[in-house]
Amino acid sequence: MSLAEAETIIEVPFFDLDPMNVVWHGNYIKYTEIARCALLDKIGYSYDEMRIDGVMYPIAKMEMKFIKSAVFGQKLCVKTIIEELEPGLNIRYIIKDAKTGETLFKAKTMQICVEFATGKSLYEAPEKFKKGIECLKKS
Amino acid sequence: MSLAEAETIIEVPFFDLDPMNVVWHGNYIKYTEIARCALLDKIGYSYDEMRIDGVMYPIAKMEMKFIKSAVFGQKLCVKTIIEELEPGLNIRYIIKDAKTGETLFKAKTMQICVEFATGKSLYEAPEKFKKGIECLKKS
Amino acid sequence: MSLAEAETIIEVPFFDLDPMNVVWHGNYIKYTEIARCALLDKIGYSYDEMRIDGVMYPIAKMEMKFIKSAVFGQKLCVKTIIEELEPGLNIRYIIKDAKTGETLFKAKTMQICVEFATGKSLYEAPEKFKKGIECLKKS
Amino acid sequence: MSLAEAETIIEVPFFDLDPMNVVWHGNYIKYTEIARCALLDKIGYSYDEMRIDGVMYPIAKMEMKFIKSAVFGQKLCVKTIIEELEPGLNIRYIIKDAKTGETLFKAKTMQICVEFATGKSLYEAPEKFKKGIECLKKS
Repeated sequence: MSLAEAETIIEVPFFDLDPMNVVWHGNYIKYTEIARCALLDKIGYSYDEMRIDGVMYPIAKMEMKFIKSAVFGQKLCVKTIIEELEPGLNIRYIIKDAKTGETLFKAKTMQICVEFATGKSLYEAPEKFKKGIECLKKS
Repeated sequence: MSLAEAETIIEVPFFDLDPMNVVWHGNYIKYTEIARCALLDKIGYSYDEMRIDGVMYPIAKMEMKFIKSAVFGQKLCVKTIIEELEPGLNIRYIIKDAKTGETLFKAKTMQICVEFATGKSLYEAPEKFKKGIECLKKS
Repeated sequence: MSLAEAETIIEVPFFDLDPMNVVWHGNYIKYTEIARCALLDKIGYSYDEMRIDGVMYPIAKMEMKFIKSAVFGQKLCVKTIIEELEPGLNIRYIIKDAKTGETLFKAKTMQICVEFATGKSLYEAPEKFKKGIECLKKS
Repeated sequence: MSLAEAETIIEVPFFDLDPMNVVWHGNYIKYTEIARCALLDKIGYSYDEMRIDGVMYPIAKMEMKFIKSAVFGQKLCVKTIIEELEPGLNIRYIIKDAKTGETLFKAKTMQICVEFATGKSLYEAPEKFKKGIECLKKS
């Protein structure tokens, strides 16, 4: 199921490469974060809104599948899909070559909404987050 | 099951921290790589031996569980355990606080042995790798 | 003096921030590399052309001046200027806020052209590099 | 002149390498930070003490000279030398191969003491910092 989606283009920088001349596997996490931030921006619920609401969304779990290596200068299309908002925020990521559409990488993250002041886990998403997703659906 | 194990101490550097004053989640992958390299060194089958054998071991899958955040200067003990060598190399990682033993992070990687020249997947591990593990068991 | 120039827009990602909530000083080097690659692309003499010519351009010296800290999501304009091509490649970098024009960072790099096969320093730039700069000037 | 010195051993991790099979130039900054933190620890005036004193020491300028490339697994000895404490904190860095003593890299940083609450530059170092350096000299 998809509650909200976004697509982000990222160009592979030189410093992300390893001696095999491909992106070092740990650097794909950066691409998922850039894309997740773009998705949250689109929804209108990014880190600033979280701070105002007194919550944060640390990553609790992450799974990654490395299918084909990305190379220098390659334009990647990172698709992000919110699959679940409550009790936890589940996002799926698919990285494809922006031109050919070939799939290179897949991932899932599970994030928990945590009250900043108390450190307590909340199993409901903040109102503004839910409304942002509703607005995006209608548009 | 454990075919081989190692423990590596890592001290959290300042540049691994994020604005929450804890290690950014993507940086734990670096700790797993440092620890995996130390384990392979102990076995006597590190990147140089792979190169000589004409193989490489790219990461195909990775799972991570973030339990408690690490902080600046904290000494981490990264335990690595080879659980399977064939057909794929499966390694498990547990990061604990080196003093208190509190568990902070867990991960698993699945790597495939690939012939460098052809790009073909091999489902048997190189002889030297297997012998290295045998030697370690006896010691 | 300016032999060639380019401007690149970079948006500060979350993972570049440090506990002070600003970009960690070491991450500005990444911005200079992204911008230098964009400049070389514009000239038509990027890493692929260097490889074909059998040369590389390692950084020999770098100077940086940190004027004002960049923050999360800030759009930066990185201006790059080739000031000298021979005997060494000297590039100047100025990072400004893309909206306000406020200067945040300045840098200089000095690179040496090195013959890949021999490791010997060359004090003349490859023909294609010089021609690319000439073409850009006329356009 | 040397007010205080330290030496730190760093082993080059795989993820710091670039496609040339050497440490990417931007990663040397990480080594200078690890070594600077070790020096400040030895003096007894690290980030925690700065926080208690309500000051911070942002990097204002940095110069780097890349002499010879470091490679995977190489053990580096990073020597740090405080050359000036007031009005600014000037530190010099020399990275050598830990075994052969061959010099690979040199750098200088200039840091300014800034009052956290006001953002005002202070041209005197905090008392505890000066005392820590005095103690180290006598030992």
